[in-house]
Amino acid sequence: MLLARVEGNLTATRKHPSFEGWRLVICQPIGRDGSPEGVPQVAIDSLGAGMHQRVVISSDGAAARRAVGDEKSPVRWIIIGVVDEVTPGTTALQDAKE
Amino acid sequence: MLLARVEGNLTATRKHPSFEGWRLVICQPIGRDGSPEGVPQVAIDSLGAGMHQRVVISSDGAAARRAVGDEKSPVRWIIIGVVDEVTPGTTALQDAKE
Amino acid sequence: MLLARVEGNLTATRKHPSFEGWRLVICQPIGRDGSPEGVPQVAIDSLGAGMHQRVVISSDGAAARRAVGDEKSPVRWIIIGVVDEVTPGTTALQDAKE
Amino acid sequence: MLLARVEGNLTATRKHPSFEGWRLVICQPIGRDGSPEGVPQVAIDSLGAGMHQRVVISSDGAAARRAVGDEKSPVRWIIIGVVDEVTPGTTALQDAKE
Amino acid sequence: MLLARVEGNLTATRKHPSFEGWRLVICQPIGRDGSPEGVPQVAIDSLGAGMHQRVVISSDGAAARRAVGDEKSPVRWIIIGVVDEVTPGTTALQDAKE
Repeated sequence: MLLARVEGNLTATRKHPSFEGWRLVICQPIGRDGSPEGVPQVAIDSLGAGMHQRVVISSDGAAARRAVGDEKSPVRWIIIGVVDEVTPGTTALQDAKE
Repeated sequence: MLLARVEGNLTATRKHPSFEGWRLVICQPIGRDGSPEGVPQVAIDSLGAGMHQRVVISSDGAAARRAVGDEKSPVRWIIIGVVDEVTPGTTALQDAKE
Repeated sequence: MLLARVEGNLTATRKHPSFEGWRLVICQPIGRDGSPEGVPQVAIDSLGAGMHQRVVISSDGAAARRAVGDEKSPVRWIIIGVVDEVTPGTTALQDAKE
Repeated sequence: MLLARVEGNLTATRKHPSFEGWRLVICQPIGRDGSPEGVPQVAIDSLGAGMHQRVVISSDGAAARRAVGDEKSPVRWIIIGVVDEVTPGTTALQDAKE
Repeated sequence: MLLARVEGNLTATRKHPSFEGWRLVICQPIGRDGSPEGVPQVAIDSLGAGMHQRVVISSDGAAARRAVGDEKSPVRWIIIGVVDEVTPGTTALQDAKE
């Protein structure tokens, strides 16, 4: 499960039918301080995450397939939480590092 | 699931028989701005993605095995969508970052 | 399974119901000398790991689902151990490298 | 599935019994232009890939276990194809990038 | 499956009960020339690998769970071989690259 930031929406006319009607979101994994880390993932979203919001994404395919209601879907990543807050804040962490 | 760009086709005479007749495509994962991110993946393609087109690829092995019609195939990655558009555009994102 | 350091707690009001009541922890994978390595993971914690403590995390989804008591949860990473000690210590390793 | 180059053979006397008699090969994932990308993987080979040849490797454990004929083997990566050609060639790609 | 070097032992008093009595080893994935590559993994060891020895590790959870004798263990990585030799040697590879 990765902390990520929503960075865009994808539109795809030619796609696996199980994605029909689902929002496909580009999620950039980030560190605690918000810096990008690793490869962006494409996830489906059922929580209505806003652009640039921090979310938690999971690669649990079984849960994602249940979400789209198609046990044969190739879906893998799903947004499982919209982050309100990370504690301690970034400043506190930087203090701890010094 | 990764956003990727199609970068080439593979030809392999000696291969697992389940790949017979399938197009094998090199897909370079990319970020929203199109920059390469991480290791290229080899995927099968049933959507007819063109060279340098942006696609979404999934590592769901079960779906890929259903696609090739062989439950014993070692296939893993499959192109699941051909991207029409990413919104907001790159310019909008760069604005948001400033 | 990764050696990681606890770097923060996440609060999320909108989330998959299976995470209700669980502590979500940001775990930064580290090397033997404590340097960060790779992408931070979000894990659930049932061992009461403290801030900045070293832990071992596992991506075993089945064990994580048993922990939260919901076989349909999209949970994947779980803290499976709190590290007391790494031997030989960092100094010994640096000696070996020279 | 990754495009990789064969870079060496491993000999191991103490090993899981399911690897007995199998060739263990170090496979360096590469990009289209042949540059190394990411962590080398150890794979079993049943296609007789030669040193420095380009191959496609898959992390499909089930297929690999069938290959070694032991459903309890910890084997994961397997060479699934020996690459004859990648098209368009590297030069064409470089043209496209300019 | 990764080629790795044993870099340390972990002690953890608070841990999942299935790890009781097992040696937990920090394994740094390496390239053919011994240079570190990617994130260190924590693996269980039943082959008695020595400090700084080269090993092959696998992320096959099912095999690891059988090894610890607990089908509900969150264990994932296991040392599956102790490397005697890599051929051709590093020098030969460097020649090939020139």
